[in-house]
Amino acid sequence: MQKRKALLFTAALATAAAFAVRAKAQFAKAEDGVKYRQSAFTMMANHMGRLSAMARGQVPFDAASAQASARLIETLSHLPWEAFVPGSTSRGLKAEPWADAADFKARSERLAGETAKLPAAAGSLETLRQQVGATGGACKNCHDKYRNS
Amino acid sequence: MQKRKALLFTAALATAAAFAVRAKAQFAKAEDGVKYRQSAFTMMANHMGRLSAMARGQVPFDAASAQASARLIETLSHLPWEAFVPGSTSRGLKAEPWADAADFKARSERLAGETAKLPAAAGSLETLRQQVGATGGACKNCHDKYRNS
Repeated sequence: MQKRKALLFTAALATAAAFAVRAKAQFAKAEDGVKYRQSAFTMMANHMGRLSAMARGQVPFDAASAQASARLIETLSHLPWEAFVPGSTSRGLKAEPWADAADFKARSERLAGETAKLPAAAGSLETLRQQVGATGGACKNCHDKYRNS
Repeated sequence: MQKRKALLFTAALATAAAFAVRAKAQFAKAEDGVKYRQSAFTMMANHMGRLSAMARGQVPFDAASAQASARLIETLSHLPWEAFVPGSTSRGLKAEPWADAADFKARSERLAGETAKLPAAAGSLETLRQQVGATGGACKNCHDKYRNS
């Protein structure tokens, strides 16, 4: 029994190890960083879309669903920045974030400041509407300089 | 009675319409669903990689960092499933999840059961190692049937 458990454990760890090899460092190759940050932005955009649809009255307001999206956006909004590894260019980039790290950091922190207010704001349609606007403004503030549209 | 039926029907239709609009907003096209679920899996794989690297001793164990990855994996592990909209095929799919929804759900719930234990397990290297193995096993359990490797 102990032996069987040990074997199962070893097999499971080998599967997990496959992940480790794939991402030995966080972003072993520049394209790993590109994929990771684009994934974070894709998910953020999707959930911002859900909140915007409620804010614009295209979808009925639902506090629980809005708060779930809001919490997720807050979490995700901290993640993409480390993946802008110097040299990790991509088609989506209009300017290189690593060329002016202080400016890029300030813009990402403005976003984090706004997403931090989203979960509480998602409790009512009126406050959600306002905070979706402010958060969208923080997205745009960075996109204007760094993102090809 | 007829009038009441008509009202109920109208209400039901409005509810259905709301879901339709919501679904439309979430994944307007099948490819939106594919992008969304692939993004969630990309981020999960990246953070599983970070935990596995610690579990295997390739990276020094750091409880705070491990717990942050663990919490993120737990959150992300609930997200991809709704994006497997019937018909949203992709190169990565070996079998169609919507062809046997109950089987697919059971596999996704096994994963959720394991990721729920990750944050607490990430507090020590020994428990992390074990729970990374169990979580990797739940990943594999679904990949074996549904994912082209």
